[in-house]
Order: sequence, then structure tokens, then C-alpha cells
Amino acid sequence: MNYSIIGFVLGWIVKVEGIFLLLPLFVSFIYKETTGIYFLICAAASIIIGTLMSYKKPENKSFYAREGFITVALGWIVMSLIGAFPFYLSGEIPSYLDAFFEIVSGFTTTGASILSDVEALSHCMLFWRSFSHWLGGMGVLVFVLTILPLSGGESLYFMKAESPGPSVSKLMPKMRQTAGILYIIYTGLMLIEALLLIIGKMPVFDAVCMAMGTAGTGGFGVLNSSAGSYTVFQQAVLTIFMMLFGVNFSFYFLLLMKKGKEAFSMEEVRWYFAIWGSVVLLITVNVTMTMGGNPLLNFHHAAFQAASVMTTTGFSTVNFNLWPELSKVLMVMLMFVGACAGSTGGGIKVSRFGIYAKTIKKEFSSLLHPRSIKILKMDGKKIEHTVIRSANVFLCTYVIVFFLSFILITLDNFDFETNFTAITATLNNIGPGLSQVGPIENFGKFSPFSKLVLCFDMLAGRLELFPMLLLFLPSTWKRK
Amino acid sequence: MNYSIIGFVLGWIVKVEGIFLLLPLFVSFIYKETTGIYFLICAAASIIIGTLMSYKKPENKSFYAREGFITVALGWIVMSLIGAFPFYLSGEIPSYLDAFFEIVSGFTTTGASILSDVEALSHCMLFWRSFSHWLGGMGVLVFVLTILPLSGGESLYFMKAESPGPSVSKLMPKMRQTAGILYIIYTGLMLIEALLLIIGKMPVFDAVCMAMGTAGTGGFGVLNSSAGSYTVFQQAVLTIFMMLFGVNFSFYFLLLMKKGKEAFSMEEVRWYFAIWGSVVLLITVNVTMTMGGNPLLNFHHAAFQAASVMTTTGFSTVNFNLWPELSKVLMVMLMFVGACAGSTGGGIKVSRFGIYAKTIKKEFSSLLHPRSIKILKMDGKKIEHTVIRSANVFLCTYVIVFFLSFILITLDNFDFETNFTAITATLNNIGPGLSQVGPIENFGKFSPFSKLVLCFDMLAGRLELFPMLLLFLPSTWKRK
Repeated sequence: MNYSIIGFVLGWIVKVEGIFLLLPLFVSFIYKETTGIYFLICAAASIIIGTLMSYKKPENKSFYAREGFITVALGWIVMSLIGAFPFYLSGEIPSYLDAFFEIVSGFTTTGASILSDVEALSHCMLFWRSFSHWLGGMGVLVFVLTILPLSGGESLYFMKAESPGPSVSKLMPKMRQTAGILYIIYTGLMLIEALLLIIGKMPVFDAVCMAMGTAGTGGFGVLNSSAGSYTVFQQAVLTIFMMLFGVNFSFYFLLLMKKGKEAFSMEEVRWYFAIWGSVVLLITVNVTMTMGGNPLLNFHHAAFQAASVMTTTGFSTVNFNLWPELSKVLMVMLMFVGACAGSTGGGIKVSRFGIYAKTIKKEFSSLLHPRSIKILKMDGKKIEHTVIRSANVFLCTYVIVFFLSFILITLDNFDFETNFTAITATLNNIGPGLSQVGPIENFGKFSPFSKLVLCFDMLAGRLELFPMLLLFLPSTWKRK
Repeated sequence: MNYSIIGFVLGWIVKVEGIFLLLPLFVSFIYKETTGIYFLICAAASIIIGTLMSYKKPENKSFYAREGFITVALGWIVMSLIGAFPFYLSGEIPSYLDAFFEIVSGFTTTGASILSDVEALSHCMLFWRSFSHWLGGMGVLVFVLTILPLSGGESLYFMKAESPGPSVSKLMPKMRQTAGILYIIYTGLMLIEALLLIIGKMPVFDAVCMAMGTAGTGGFGVLNSSAGSYTVFQQAVLTIFMMLFGVNFSFYFLLLMKKGKEAFSMEEVRWYFAIWGSVVLLITVNVTMTMGGNPLLNFHHAAFQAASVMTTTGFSTVNFNLWPELSKVLMVMLMFVGACAGSTGGGIKVSRFGIYAKTIKKEFSSLLHPRSIKILKMDGKKIEHTVIRSANVFLCTYVIVFFLSFILITLDNFDFETNFTAITATLNNIGPGLSQVGPIENFGKFSPFSKLVLCFDMLAGRLELFPMLLLFLPSTWKRK
């Protein structure tokens, strides 16, 4: 293991986070909040420590997959350890573990909170919470690598370890350039959303925070009612942009390259909208039939809630924990499906389910006709064996991590539904679950041990399991 | 599709079931029960219809995988349709759908009941319920093929479609001979168990029924208290034999062939006992710490309950729905793990989990050392690619069937835990779940639609998904 280069990259991460910590400071100037001082302290400390760590360029340049995974995993942990300090030092979140949970939830774009009263936070803290979604959404290392003075060979390992979805599409030959364009799409879409919200008469602070929360598919809001007290127009804008940020970014890439036909024929994107549409219809009918109310308004809320959990954002306009069982379980299913690969959303990803469906279809056909040979295709191209294998290994690992975490948090003796959906909501980076972790509840009730388990799940979910798991594997640290 | 040969084999199944229906008739003589007449009627009808169906040996002998799967799936459905009649005609189960549910639960060795008062049934009906476990445990077609006047080429397809576990081990060159030896082991073990129970002063009727329920890993008892009112010695005998019937039968095969060393080094069997032992210890500690009581007695009940759900039998001595959450969730986990492949138990199977664990380990190592090549081995032999692939496809299919069934039964609006564990308990052929389908509850509360879904899950679980799914696939029925 090349510790010097890992330390060097971590130093850069700390330094960059220090610079980002200055943004909430400016927010505190606008609102004349004294708590801004804690951001200054943390920023200064981070920049100094980060600079010291990355002062000397390491001589040993060897950087392989192992170093890549470990750097990414440690990078996210270090970022969170630092990012928790402003909450803790200011006393706005009195327990450091709670502050850590909150910022892990932010960076991993989960949006699960330990706070019962969000509105009690100062503006700069609220901004930092929402900003952490924006930072975490696209991947912090992807950002760092656009400015990192390294050879470039490392980039591939970072992208591999940090980008969601079965495979990093090789859209552009140069990683650094790709990352840059992705950030432009990401920020551009976010600004359009914020603008539309402001036109729809949302306060500017809310609009910026909600747009950052949508862009990262995070889910932290600035009001206790999440998105419940916004107007129908504002909620509709949020619905549309949540769905847009759950789309595979290759889609926008293709559009930018004027390959509209190719973009619109992407199978994953079509499935994504088809699944969402079907669930919205089912929920609308189910809720209207059992709870009554205006069907159009029910449709509006179904569309919002379904978009929110499928893209793993986690905003809410109604308390879906009060919906009939069918609708609740459909919501839980969407949590597992998740958004498209290559988007900022979490979950198992639509494309993986596509691969699973195709594999099952192939198995059926080979059971019926044992001698036939069939090749799996997506978007007209053959799906490589390694992609299928890694999707399968992902599912096995996912199931095992899910149930082990489930067992661990049952020690708190909450009910089955709470425990099951708490893991669902954190491992898939959603935010709210059902029952005691429903939309109007919070995660503050768990024991410190369970909170650590849930933090692990959020990080594991965001980094697609393997980097975090490798961190705990003894053989990772063995000398070869 | 060669319909004539399918009809011919189905005829044989009906005929054989007719003969088996005479057994409860003898029981009714012993207890002087008039309800025995319904078994006579059903037996006579079955034998006549079956004989007519299999009167002429079909000229078209072509029999392929497709015919194999369809025959097995239809065979199990036909068997259940017939087997439900004695309950229904006698009025002891007034609804035909409920009677169908009960016998599907019997044949698939699930043990989930719609009855709230088991003791109200007459002895011959109780015997038929328990006998259906014995019949279904080893596989009815495997039995039929030992007497079927066909060439033998079909046997492979039957075994493939009906035998649980990732692969049919090719222990003996001749299928018919293998099936015979398996039936001898199966019946021998059962008789030893019944004898031990009788020595332990259990009434003979109870002993025979409980032994059949254990052998098939079924779970129907003859008392409302399941196994709760038996003595500690009797319960201990049941624990031991439940575990023995969950062992891969290749183990006994190897012992018979005096290959003790090979038998005891079977990885699956070792894991099976290791998992069971660990869970028993955890539950003992958890229950003793939260609920108090004698640790030894807690150990006894933990061992019984864990053996019961892991082997997917489903007897109970205590109401584990009252245990603390950790113990309850550990029970649910065991339900998924299930017994060994090649045993009479259900679930995902220990060997599949072994394959998953090995695949994940390999993935870790190839992530760390991308250029290394590693071969997966079990019991010192290479695991074939097709075995791994089919274990993976199984998991994908399992997850999808699980969640689709889950969604369908939520229409009854029971709580999350009830719905989740109802599917867990039927798809894995366990019997009891938690909450409203817990050990002292029953499945009578579900709507007719949900009961059909659960029947499908029991059959799909018993036949390892594919035969039942192929039945509903339009392309199965297409002419080629």
C-alpha cells in the first residue's frame, strides 16, 4: 500500500473542503449570524492541515485499484469527520456523533436527519447541510481530480470507486474533461431549478437550498414540513427536477453532442420513467379509493413522493406513512429500485434491474431450449460478462450487508417496519422510511451503536458497497 | 409441446395419489370415523380417472426440458386440487379454497395453516395433512419415476425440476436406483424418529404424524399448541431429527458407502451446523438477558425454534413472536437461509449462500488485485460456471418473486411485518411467520386473492421457482 500518495490525496480533499467551508461563512454574513465563526475556524484548520499533508508531492507514484478504493473510502470518512465540526462546535447539534450522522447523511445525499426541529438551526448551518448534498451528489473526488496535480492514471480508479452504477460509460477519452462537463451539466440544471423556484415565489434562500438538495438527490430541506408548505407550482418544479437528476447523465451528454435519437432510445431512461409512471398511477388509484380526496391532487402528491423516493432524494409533501399498505410498500420497492446509473441518485439502480430482468429472461429461454445460445444486449450493444458478473456480486453483497445491518440495529428493539425501512432508507440513500423513521419522524431515537451502523450503510450505499467493505477487510492492509 | 406424454404422466400421478388416499381410510377404520368415506370416494375417483388418463402409452416419446418443467408444475397443482377434496367434501374445511391452501401447504411441506382449531379435525384428516408432508418432502415425481414404465430419459428432467438445491449431485449412474435409495434413507430415518418418540411416551398417532411432519420438514402438528405441550425429551428428539432432515442427503449416501471422511468434510453440512449453532447461542443470550428465565430451558427452546425455521419445518414450542426484536429478526434470517441443498428443507439453501460468499470473496480479491485469477472451489472441487450463474439467476428471480408477491398481498392492508413474514414463511416453505401470521396465528385471515398468491409462493418455493414461473410464461406454450 502506498501510504504517502493516499495521505497526499487526502490532504487535497481536506484542503478543498476547507475552501468549501468558507461558503457558509458568507451566508452567515448575509444573515448576520455569529455562528459563522465556527466555519471560519474549521476552514482555517482544514486548509492548514490539508496544505501540510499535501505539501510534498510523493516520490512513490504507484497507485493501483487498492489505493483507489482506500483513498475514496477514507476520503469520505475524513470529509464527514471535518464537516461535522461546525454543527458540534456551535452547539446547534450538541452531540458530535449526531453531528457526524447529519453530515454523513448530507454528503452521501441521504437526507436522513437526527433533528426534530430543523428550523431551529441558523441559516449558515442549514446552508452547509444542503451544500453537503451538492458536494456529495457528484462525488467529491471526481471534483478533486479535476484540479489534482497528478498524472491522471489515478482518475480511473477514483471514478470507478465513486461513481454510481454498473459501469462508468466511456463517453470521453479524458477523465478530467469528462468530470468537468458533468459538473457543468449538474450545476447548470441546478441553477435553472433555483431560478424556476424563485420565479414561483419561493424565498431565495429556500430556493437555493432546495435546488442543491434536489441536484444531489439529497433531501435535507430548510423547513420542518420538508416540501409540504410550498405551493403546488413549487412542488411540481421540484418533482420535475428530482426526476431530471435521477436520469443517467449520459443522456444529457448525448443531447449536448446532438445525438438526440441515441439519447431518447436509452433503455434505462425509458424504464426509469415507465416504472415511475406506473407506480404513480397505482398509488393515485389506491390512495383515492381508500382515503378519498381530489384525484388530481392525489396524483400530484403521488408523483412528488414517488419521484422523491425513486431518485432517492427524500423530500416529502405529505406523510406517506399514513397511506394504505399497498402504496407504502410500492414506495419501499421504489427505494430499492433507485435512480439511473450515472445519475446522482442511489439505490440498486434501474440498469441493474434491467440486467437482472434480461438474465432471468435468458434463463427461462435456456431452460426451455437448452441448446439455444442467446446474447444479452442493452441499447443494442452486447452486455459484457464482467458487467453481468459484477451486477450479480453487487446483489449478493447488497442482500448480505442489508440483513447484517438489519440484525445489528434490532438491538434497539424498535419494530420490524422501523428497522427494515431504516436500513432501506440509509443503504439506498433515501432519507425517510416508514413507521418510526417516517417522513415526519427522525433518526435521533437510535442508540449510538445503531447510528454508527446507519452511517456505515449510508457511506456504503453511496460508494456502492465495495470501497467501504474493503476498508474492513484484513487482506486489504496486508503487504503483498 | 408433447401433450400426450404430459397427460400420461399426470395420469400416473393421479393414480398413485389415489392409492395413497387409501391410507387415511385405514386410519378412519382404527378410530371408527365416518369421514373416512370421503377418502374412499376420492381414492376411487382418482384411480379411475388416473387409469383412464394413463391407459394408452403415448406414441410420441419426445420429452424435453420444457415437458419436464410443465409436467412437474402441473403435477403438483393437480395433486393439490385432488388432495383438497377430502377436507372439503367432509365439511371439516368448509371452503374449497381453504382446503386447497391447506393441502398445498402440506405437499409443499410449508405447514402454514388456515385452521384456528386443528384439534377439531378427525384423525383421518389429521393423518392426511401430515402424510402430505411425507409425500411432498421427497418429491412426488421422484417417487412416480421409480415405478413409471418409461424409458428413463425423462427422469433427469423430473429430478432437475423437483429436487431442491443448486445441482443434483450425480451420486449414482442410474436415476431410478438413486431415487430408491433416497426413499430408503428418508423412510428409515423417519421410522427411527417415530420409534424414539414412542419410547419417549408420545401417543403413537402423534408420534407417526410428527415424524412425517419432521421428515418432510413440513410443520403440520396434530395439536393446537404445535409441539408446545410435548415433554422436553420429545421436543429434543424433534430438534435433532429436524436438523437431520435438513442435512444434504448426499451426506447419508456417503456414509452408506462408507466414505465417512468425505461425508464429514462436506462444506455445506459444516456451515449448516455452524450457522444454526451461532444463532442458537445468540438467541439464548438475547432471550435470557431481556426476558429472564432458566438459561438452559431458553437454550432448549432456542435450539428447537432455530432448527424448526432453518430446516423450514415450522413446529414451535414457544411463541417466538414474543421474543425481543433481535431474536425475531435472527429467526427471519434463518428462514431465508434455509436448509442444505439435497435435503427435504426449503429456503434459499446453505450451499447457495456458500456460493454467494465465495463469489463476494473472489470479487474482493479481484478488486484488490485486478490481474489475479482465482477459481471457486467447494469440497475441493471447482464450482462450474453454470452453477454460479444459476445461483445468481435464482437470487434475482427470488428477490423479484418475493417483492411482487409482497405487493400483491398488501391489498389486504395487514401490517408490514405480517405481509413480509407471510411471504417469507410461504416462499421458503416454513409455516409460521411473525405478527399476525406468528406461531399461534393462522393464514385464514387473508382474502381469497392473497391465499392464491400465497399458494403460488408455496409451490414456487418448493419447486425452486422456475417450473411454476414457466407455467405462466406465454412462450412456454408457443409452438416452435
